[in-house]
Amino acid sequence: MLVNLIAVLDIDVCGPSMPRVMGVLNEQVHQSGSGWSPVFVDDNLSVMSVGFLLSSPDDAVIWRGPKKTGMIRQFLSEVDWGDTVDFLIIDTPPGTSDEHLSIVQYLKCMNNLQAIVVTTPQEVALLDVRKEIDFCRKTSIPILGVVENMTSFICSNCKQSSEIFPKNTGGAEAMCAELNVPLLGKVPLDPRLAQSCDEGGNFIQEFSDSPATTAFIEIVSKIQGLP
Amino acid sequence: MLVNLIAVLDIDVCGPSMPRVMGVLNEQVHQSGSGWSPVFVDDNLSVMSVGFLLSSPDDAVIWRGPKKTGMIRQFLSEVDWGDTVDFLIIDTPPGTSDEHLSIVQYLKCMNNLQAIVVTTPQEVALLDVRKEIDFCRKTSIPILGVVENMTSFICSNCKQSSEIFPKNTGGAEAMCAELNVPLLGKVPLDPRLAQSCDEGGNFIQEFSDSPATTAFIEIVSKIQGLP
Repeated sequence: MLVNLIAVLDIDVCGPSMPRVMGVLNEQVHQSGSGWSPVFVDDNLSVMSVGFLLSSPDDAVIWRGPKKTGMIRQFLSEVDWGDTVDFLIIDTPPGTSDEHLSIVQYLKCMNNLQAIVVTTPQEVALLDVRKEIDFCRKTSIPILGVVENMTSFICSNCKQSSEIFPKNTGGAEAMCAELNVPLLGKVPLDPRLAQSCDEGGNFIQEFSDSPATTAFIEIVSKIQGLP
Repeated sequence: MLVNLIAVLDIDVCGPSMPRVMGVLNEQVHQSGSGWSPVFVDDNLSVMSVGFLLSSPDDAVIWRGPKKTGMIRQFLSEVDWGDTVDFLIIDTPPGTSDEHLSIVQYLKCMNNLQAIVVTTPQEVALLDVRKEIDFCRKTSIPILGVVENMTSFICSNCKQSSEIFPKNTGGAEAMCAELNVPLLGKVPLDPRLAQSCDEGGNFIQEFSDSPATTAFIEIVSKIQGLP
């Protein structure tokens, strides 16, 4: 089986979550002659985040745009990912500002930069996501698709599925149809997933029975099947 | 009864939600000799947001920090709120960057600038909120307290309360004790609240029976009772 090399770059400079979610909270990055070494979560999975550069995880990163842009430029030019990575996944904060513009500016020379947009079903969230889609179009980034998170909640008591956020305007499905963007999948909220994120566990391996795992696997297959 | 005059300033420049949440999505602001007129939601409640200045609600606001800072400065100096407002509530995006620094810079001369910090119970969210608290401390803004949102979910089928996000590290309560910050309250997730936000309805009036309404009223009383 061919194993892809995956690198994750967390550009949420003021709220980096990747070190915790990936279970490498207390790791540190090292600087060598060939640049910064990212933190390896697994043989084929490495991660870089401003979180690794803080002296305490509670420290605020109080930076205006230009300083954030400088950090992102450094991440893109000075991290030595080792072997050639097959996929670089860039986790951005919400918005359409410095972080997003920096990525477009520095990576626009690559012809395979694509966006995955994540939302929740309620209109207040879709309102922001429509702006993200407009941003991608204005900056000519193809949209791989939209993922709807927190689509439903499986009650831990009666095991019935409830809607957490009523889909007043049809949720991500209606928005995708309206804006002509693929819907990659809908992920139900499983409290064990939030727990896995908090603990940096391997959710798909530990909770293969979860409906969220099924949704993740379907989303990945869909992405792999795209041209 | 003395009625307070409340003004809401939405400085989430790239993702303004206040026009929708307040039910004034299609309103526009007008410019007069005395400045921009905010939109009045009620006799004693006005709101200003970049959302009112967009030609379409789907339009992305693709601005780097300095332009966002300029807009916030304009909001603070050129909005004619009418009578003297008793409370100016500033809704910020997540993070500790341009928007937050601008508010501190422009309003530091006021001796009654205080922060309310909103979180959800899981550690991934608390991680960011600890940074917000560190930001307030480093910029000498007193913290009025912390509100925990989405503390629990009332199943629409069996009416039992479930935890949506497991409190692996004790939730906001443990964080507040650790950082010596008041906990103002915990708001359970009621799907009707998300619906009200989407529709711009008056949740407290329409759903006075909701446990979320009880939580909101307790939080307001607690704030009113603070020195």
